Amino acid sequence: MKAIQIVKPGSEPELREVDKPSPGPGQVLLKVTAAGACHSDDFVLNMPAEGFPYPLPMTLGHEGVGVVAETGSGVTSIAEGTPVAVYGPWGCGVCHFCSGGLENYCSRAAELQITPPGLGVDGAMADYLLVDDPRHLVPIGDLDPVRTVPLTDAGLTPYHAIKPSLPKLVGGSTAVVIGAGGLGHVAIQMLRHLTPSRIIALDVTEEKLAFASEVGAHETVLSNEDAVAGVRKIVGNEGATAVFDFVGYQPTIDTALGVVGTMGDVVVVGLGDGAATAKIGIFAQPFEVSARAPYWGTRSELIEVLDLARDGVLDVAVETFSLDDGLEAYRKLAANDLRGRAVVVPD
Amino acid sequence: MKAIQIVKPGSEPELREVDKPSPGPGQVLLKVTAAGACHSDDFVLNMPAEGFPYPLPMTLGHEGVGVVAETGSGVTSIAEGTPVAVYGPWGCGVCHFCSGGLENYCSRAAELQITPPGLGVDGAMADYLLVDDPRHLVPIGDLDPVRTVPLTDAGLTPYHAIKPSLPKLVGGSTAVVIGAGGLGHVAIQMLRHLTPSRIIALDVTEEKLAFASEVGAHETVLSNEDAVAGVRKIVGNEGATAVFDFVGYQPTIDTALGVVGTMGDVVVVGLGDGAATAKIGIFAQPFEVSARAPYWGTRSELIEVLDLARDGVLDVAVETFSLDDGLEAYRKLAANDLRGRAVVVPD
Amino acid sequence: MKAIQIVKPGSEPELREVDKPSPGPGQVLLKVTAAGACHSDDFVLNMPAEGFPYPLPMTLGHEGVGVVAETGSGVTSIAEGTPVAVYGPWGCGVCHFCSGGLENYCSRAAELQITPPGLGVDGAMADYLLVDDPRHLVPIGDLDPVRTVPLTDAGLTPYHAIKPSLPKLVGGSTAVVIGAGGLGHVAIQMLRHLTPSRIIALDVTEEKLAFASEVGAHETVLSNEDAVAGVRKIVGNEGATAVFDFVGYQPTIDTALGVVGTMGDVVVVGLGDGAATAKIGIFAQPFEVSARAPYWGTRSELIEVLDLARDGVLDVAVETFSLDDGLEAYRKLAANDLRGRAVVVPD
Amino acid sequence: MKAIQIVKPGSEPELREVDKPSPGPGQVLLKVTAAGACHSDDFVLNMPAEGFPYPLPMTLGHEGVGVVAETGSGVTSIAEGTPVAVYGPWGCGVCHFCSGGLENYCSRAAELQITPPGLGVDGAMADYLLVDDPRHLVPIGDLDPVRTVPLTDAGLTPYHAIKPSLPKLVGGSTAVVIGAGGLGHVAIQMLRHLTPSRIIALDVTEEKLAFASEVGAHETVLSNEDAVAGVRKIVGNEGATAVFDFVGYQPTIDTALGVVGTMGDVVVVGLGDGAATAKIGIFAQPFEVSARAPYWGTRSELIEVLDLARDGVLDVAVETFSLDDGLEAYRKLAANDLRGRAVVVPD
Repeated sequence: MKAIQIVKPGSEPELREVDKPSPGPGQVLLKVTAAGACHSDDFVLNMPAEGFPYPLPMTLGHEGVGVVAETGSGVTSIAEGTPVAVYGPWGCGVCHFCSGGLENYCSRAAELQITPPGLGVDGAMADYLLVDDPRHLVPIGDLDPVRTVPLTDAGLTPYHAIKPSLPKLVGGSTAVVIGAGGLGHVAIQMLRHLTPSRIIALDVTEEKLAFASEVGAHETVLSNEDAVAGVRKIVGNEGATAVFDFVGYQPTIDTALGVVGTMGDVVVVGLGDGAATAKIGIFAQPFEVSARAPYWGTRSELIEVLDLARDGVLDVAVETFSLDDGLEAYRKLAANDLRGRAVVVPD
Repeated sequence: MKAIQIVKPGSEPELREVDKPSPGPGQVLLKVTAAGACHSDDFVLNMPAEGFPYPLPMTLGHEGVGVVAETGSGVTSIAEGTPVAVYGPWGCGVCHFCSGGLENYCSRAAELQITPPGLGVDGAMADYLLVDDPRHLVPIGDLDPVRTVPLTDAGLTPYHAIKPSLPKLVGGSTAVVIGAGGLGHVAIQMLRHLTPSRIIALDVTEEKLAFASEVGAHETVLSNEDAVAGVRKIVGNEGATAVFDFVGYQPTIDTALGVVGTMGDVVVVGLGDGAATAKIGIFAQPFEVSARAPYWGTRSELIEVLDLARDGVLDVAVETFSLDDGLEAYRKLAANDLRGRAVVVPD
Repeated sequence: MKAIQIVKPGSEPELREVDKPSPGPGQVLLKVTAAGACHSDDFVLNMPAEGFPYPLPMTLGHEGVGVVAETGSGVTSIAEGTPVAVYGPWGCGVCHFCSGGLENYCSRAAELQITPPGLGVDGAMADYLLVDDPRHLVPIGDLDPVRTVPLTDAGLTPYHAIKPSLPKLVGGSTAVVIGAGGLGHVAIQMLRHLTPSRIIALDVTEEKLAFASEVGAHETVLSNEDAVAGVRKIVGNEGATAVFDFVGYQPTIDTALGVVGTMGDVVVVGLGDGAATAKIGIFAQPFEVSARAPYWGTRSELIEVLDLARDGVLDVAVETFSLDDGLEAYRKLAANDLRGRAVVVPD
Repeated sequence: MKAIQIVKPGSEPELREVDKPSPGPGQVLLKVTAAGACHSDDFVLNMPAEGFPYPLPMTLGHEGVGVVAETGSGVTSIAEGTPVAVYGPWGCGVCHFCSGGLENYCSRAAELQITPPGLGVDGAMADYLLVDDPRHLVPIGDLDPVRTVPLTDAGLTPYHAIKPSLPKLVGGSTAVVIGAGGLGHVAIQMLRHLTPSRIIALDVTEEKLAFASEVGAHETVLSNEDAVAGVRKIVGNEGATAVFDFVGYQPTIDTALGVVGTMGDVVVVGLGDGAATAKIGIFAQPFEVSARAPYWGTRSELIEVLDLARDGVLDVAVETFSLDDGLEAYRKLAANDLRGRAVVVPD
């Protein structure tokens, strides 16, 4: 079968012919119907060779949707032919976090060398994908695979970021979304349907702000050195109730802290340069602001996100590629030249 | 000034000339701009003379909006001329419940003989209303008094009923509203804007179901002996996530228990005949269904409801009357002949 | 191997020689080190033959602790030789409830004919127990199997019953425990260590009340027709914050509703005669009392319960039997002649 | 009457003869029975004259307990002769925060120039204290004023810091308390009675660690450059569930971030130098650690804290002084020469 693999750190991925895997006991083989490319893939492709954390070659793709093609012995909870989405942040399934479905925070993943597909073991950018356990699959019914596959990361991650803040997002509240890109534009749609909050979107171009308005932002502000003043003009002294930063560079995090109000939430989701931080101190921000930096999402949250999609509430912009053209997807990703999420559709 | 008063239990209320009150220390006098009539007024008017709980004559009206006309000595937190809504379920302000704003559940109200206006002391159906403390006032800015006044009860009560269930009302959930009348039609609007739930409304006529659809219900089912089957056809084995019963007779409560699913909520809001109950037992309903019967709402919830109104999210159907025509409002209320809530507007 | 089986409904169980099971793919075989007998076993033994829900003969025992003896193919997350407790309320592992660890409320268990061990498939009252998936095992380290095994039901069930009420059990609150038996005496210990609440225990004899005091109850009241008055003498008008009924007959449930206060919780855990109910209506109890009837507990809660045991916080009274004497355990159970929980220890 | 006042910034306070205040409408006059001195008083005394934020002279003391001596007109909810504790962080009483009892976060306090007693208006270090509203008083019954007065700040502040973390502090969890002084030693007692967590206390001397053990810490670690390693030796890879820093200098905050585990809480309470911060970034700490810096506490929380005291759960170390010796209390405070909290008892 064909697979898009990373072969050498620092180089472009390659389209290669590899063996079709076979499911062992308890495993499930999917015929891939859609695989998503993500900025974090680009991050991985550019990691230095020294200390590169994954075995090579490795098939890319941590966003996957497919149809159950074959089940290993002992698998009874899912039938061949079922269309499914893949829950990506695999864990051990038995520790305290995993027992509550927070496999994204598995206590034993490092020790047991468990990794998501495409980030340590072969991922979804291929004709077939091997999934370690049926619990990592969510049936999608007649949802469109192409529109659904980005939700496994670009839907689940903002949902998990937003959910703990929902009790604060009551009537009269304000939610600020910094970065209206792949994750941010989904966040805006979720906030519109899950809260009565006024939503303010920030991004760097008028075009992106127009897009933010289109998907539901009530107000938009250019993300530049005047951003705090611009948002404050809207929210006043009270400040914003929650700020979700899908960019994650120091200026955007500082903007978040500059506009948040008393008891507000600052949620850092964007990777930025990997070094920026939100600084929480006694006199550094309004009283009892809370800052957190979540990662991906839980198993039950993915089910809820797909239910939102089924309700017609989410509309993710995508650009599709065949597997043969998949390398082009990664080129456009690297060049920041995509309109929406890149989705690869094997034949 | 003029006031609509209950003079004799079991008789119609009367329009009478009474003294304009004067605010004592810490009190606030409002020039009433809108007063709402409510089914529970009718309930009070029909209570037997023996054991009638309130001093007579008593001005009716526990829903009030007005403008601050005069403040008693020591009042500093609100200025004359401010348009305000009245928080009705007055409490002592200092017990554990009151300290958290749950004055509707004040521990000492009975002992201290504190009652809501219109339900023990003179209410809002008059030219002026005396309010015991500025903390029972919420500034409404430029909200329309007529559209706003029903929210102090018919908005606050369903909001308080719904709010504890919000964490369960995620993607894929279902909320059932029984009774699409004064409170129920506001509940439907709130559920549409606060949750992604599918909303099923039940009522007894096709006309009322059409109204429910208009205000946001996704599905409607006639409330009769086939109601459980009708709802089950939509929700299947899983059942509904939360059921709000704004009617409260035994058949509607039984319907609620018949359609709710595992870990679901049954919330009884409607007074019904005052004797119906939801029966919770080990084998009586799906696992861990929770039943509760809340009353009115909290101070901060009223602020949140008015914020929702400001966001244009709530639209309450009203029929207006002058103070001189106010007795007609009560007649229509008794005859169940009103389209929406009855609001009396003094000159 | 030996196994205590139910062979014929309405008859005593039998000690029989059966084949030692062999783990299939994804399964785990345990050498049983302790198995608990429970009142619900007695309930099953006395069910009528007609419509008896389980295949026969069936090995009893839904409380099990053992050592991993053999793992089926594909099992990687648990090693042979590991001492483990069995999570009993097995579910599908993939539905929305199971994805959050609430396998006790699995949406698909009925459809997929999944049952707990000892309640549909062979249970723990044998030399060996077959477990369907490693996720149903919790490592117990050096905890004593005999003291630990009752916690998988008689610890998990009260913990799950109590946990949602914890936010209400603050300083100044009161928790009432009705029935200081197998589950109730563990509930008292949990409440002592998880809350600052005053704990009032009710039971039918002075001896049982003395036991309740021993394990931590601050106050005790005889459970009879004066029980409401007795508790009210302690809690006054405010009423109790939460009442946990581990008996579940109509008189105890009525006592619960008679002593609970505004916004309090009534939690029915005891099976009683299976027909008693808590009646929730507008005027039937203080404002916004909530009633629920939970079942068993979740996977992460079992981990937390075992952590409590590890902290030395729980002390379960047990009476031990060999497998050969196991029938005697069931006889004493039926005769209500046990001091604590009956635990069977195979050689 | 006598009062200890700050007269000139940067100078010692003075014991002065001042007029006994008289309660206006809605106000309450207390005969002070105990007043607490606090580190933040020392902070105020040392603020520069330029830009000093309070009117001078000003009576010190934001911790107060007394007996109602006289009530202003319109006060009905509290009777003369009632012993009460004073809730210090006064707010407007009507904004959204105040309506839920979070007067510590009042939105309008700055605009309306509302301040706590002793921090903007005359405080409790005098024979009499004027309180602006009866809602700022909590009856204490027969609690000892001297032992109770520190709870209004040194009890309420740690309680408010701990309460949002309680849902995480389940069986198997670990709570770390940095600084076992005035607030920290109360925090340890609260954690012991409100959670089953293992408690690890950090401080700079063996003597203080011994004190921490005495009041309930399970483990102690010296707070120095090896502190992270010392705590990690106890908590292992999983890290601590919540860390409460009552010191608040950069090294202690860094220790907190160094020992916290996935989804853990870092709570900065200590003022430190007023400039230290907890830095939250994508790779800066375990997944989804949350940092916050709360201030004082809410009205209902003070009631709960006093209920805990009534249950005998809290034991605050105090050193008492007469009003005439009160200046000595401030000298010892400045010299860090107190054993416990300093409490001044007028005659």
